[in-house]
Amino acid sequence: MKKTILTGDRPTGSLHIGHYLGSLKQRVALQDEYHCYIEIADVQALTDNFNNPKKVRDNVREVAKDYLAVGLDPNKVTIFVQSMIPEIAELTVYYSNLVTIARLYRNPTVKGEIEQKKHLFGEDGSSLTYGFLGYPVSQAADITAFNADLIPVGEDQLPMIEQTREIVRRFNNIYGETLTEPEALVGKVGRLKGLDGNNKMGKSLGNAIFLSDSEEIVNQKIANAITDPDKIKKDDPANPDVCMVYYYHKIFSEDNLPTICEECKKGLRGCVACKKELAKNLNDFLEPIRNKRKYYDENPEEVDKILQEGTNKAREKAIETMARVRESMQIDYDFTKRP
Amino acid sequence: MKKTILTGDRPTGSLHIGHYLGSLKQRVALQDEYHCYIEIADVQALTDNFNNPKKVRDNVREVAKDYLAVGLDPNKVTIFVQSMIPEIAELTVYYSNLVTIARLYRNPTVKGEIEQKKHLFGEDGSSLTYGFLGYPVSQAADITAFNADLIPVGEDQLPMIEQTREIVRRFNNIYGETLTEPEALVGKVGRLKGLDGNNKMGKSLGNAIFLSDSEEIVNQKIANAITDPDKIKKDDPANPDVCMVYYYHKIFSEDNLPTICEECKKGLRGCVACKKELAKNLNDFLEPIRNKRKYYDENPEEVDKILQEGTNKAREKAIETMARVRESMQIDYDFTKRP
Repeated sequence: MKKTILTGDRPTGSLHIGHYLGSLKQRVALQDEYHCYIEIADVQALTDNFNNPKKVRDNVREVAKDYLAVGLDPNKVTIFVQSMIPEIAELTVYYSNLVTIARLYRNPTVKGEIEQKKHLFGEDGSSLTYGFLGYPVSQAADITAFNADLIPVGEDQLPMIEQTREIVRRFNNIYGETLTEPEALVGKVGRLKGLDGNNKMGKSLGNAIFLSDSEEIVNQKIANAITDPDKIKKDDPANPDVCMVYYYHKIFSEDNLPTICEECKKGLRGCVACKKELAKNLNDFLEPIRNKRKYYDENPEEVDKILQEGTNKAREKAIETMARVRESMQIDYDFTKRP
Repeated sequence: MKKTILTGDRPTGSLHIGHYLGSLKQRVALQDEYHCYIEIADVQALTDNFNNPKKVRDNVREVAKDYLAVGLDPNKVTIFVQSMIPEIAELTVYYSNLVTIARLYRNPTVKGEIEQKKHLFGEDGSSLTYGFLGYPVSQAADITAFNADLIPVGEDQLPMIEQTREIVRRFNNIYGETLTEPEALVGKVGRLKGLDGNNKMGKSLGNAIFLSDSEEIVNQKIANAITDPDKIKKDDPANPDVCMVYYYHKIFSEDNLPTICEECKKGLRGCVACKKELAKNLNDFLEPIRNKRKYYDENPEEVDKILQEGTNKAREKAIETMARVRESMQIDYDFTKRP
């Protein structure tokens, strides 16, 4: 039997090449072999964007178009919107009783996220919301609602999966075998660095190349990318190991890599030309994605149909799970039948 | 326009005369003047009974019968089961982003409850669950789901209402005027003491007279009630002020009170006779309640019909609220229509 995978993204911005290399590419590769549920996690996005619901709403369709543009096939994968599946909220409430506050604070991923969101939760974390601390509980609900066996994650997300596994074991232990204990499918590709050399290419860090960026924008962004910061004069030989342009060449110019490196070190290749070559390769890579996206931009009703059908299908699955959970928890009331 | 009241009970045991005097009597008095929603709060009961779902389930119908027995009229009030209203879970999840962990810990009612539940949450509270800390959030969801204007509470529950009011103000402030800010309706009757002199008559404290207790059981419980602990010999004059029997006489034997007090102080009234008089008065009070209960015990399908109809009606209201909330939060997706 085909195994089930759950993945997804928070709709807080368009997806970029970091998302592509880190997860979308893998999803496309997995879509034939697995049942793939792909969640547009708007409820989760609201945990730290509760002040800005418009941003979340505006990005739901954008993320869906990114999915379709990279080749996720709606006939193979189920793309759905989290807030349209109330069963996830119900599961979250019931799982809340199976996790201690102390355990949530100990989750390294949560710890890191709170640290990163000081602007929202305070220097000392004293403004941390109840909802944000609980997002591993809501993730456990996402995963189990669809009976997912495998969750593709980066190393840094492993503690989240461990927390879900604990909740599942505790649930099954108290209420009887009901939920599937998921496993992590750890991806090989690490995080993609940003154009500015930042360790992370981020939607809102101003250092990303988006899948929807036009040729001109890509050219411009690459033209402004950080090269070797120690190279002062135009004709100095540069060090490719600290150059962001070479960093991206390693991914998008594989065939020509030895030449690029050698020419750079010997001062035979100017940065401008080198950037142009990278921009061309990036644009070649993005071209088919852009074309597909253009199709969906021009046919928004198809995107909506895909979202509605995917959500309907996901909801059916979540309703099935919820019925099993209700039965196990003995809250499967039906007052139209006598017990 | 009629105002709306929300009240309810956790189905963790049958209701007793403390519940009657503290809230049920008032609900019966209010049922003509207000829209009354009465919640059998099984989801909330699970926050500290997650290990014992059967206890919760078994008491749902018992509590419903207690309601009907004391004269709550299903044609006037809406009795419903919390777990059958998924919108409450959804609201809980969304409100979770509007409350800080620190604020929940500061809630005096929550503090007191954690203190009382050391067996479950640890001496130092280190096993406190995420779900239990959040029960004020879930109460805010209960209250607002039905647009309740007034919440009948004891003094000790005032911080809960204040927390709901804060959540409502914060929601309306961020997402626009959507939710009704409820007010507390503070009852005059304090907490009824237990048969053992304990400050609280409690379902599970072994010191309660249940509305469903038979005449024999009432006689027996009163026969064993604590009188004046300093009265050693049979003929010693007793001190009514410290006697639990006199404490209940004050409620159930109002007409004969001066005589009882005088006879007791002068040693003219033996404790056995005094207890018999109290038991008789209590049984007179309970008799019509017992009769009504007997009817529903014999016609369980009527109870189920009332629960199903009440829950359907409550659900309709909650669905309306949820639609308003979704619109305000901009998560009212309908992909079958273009925006």
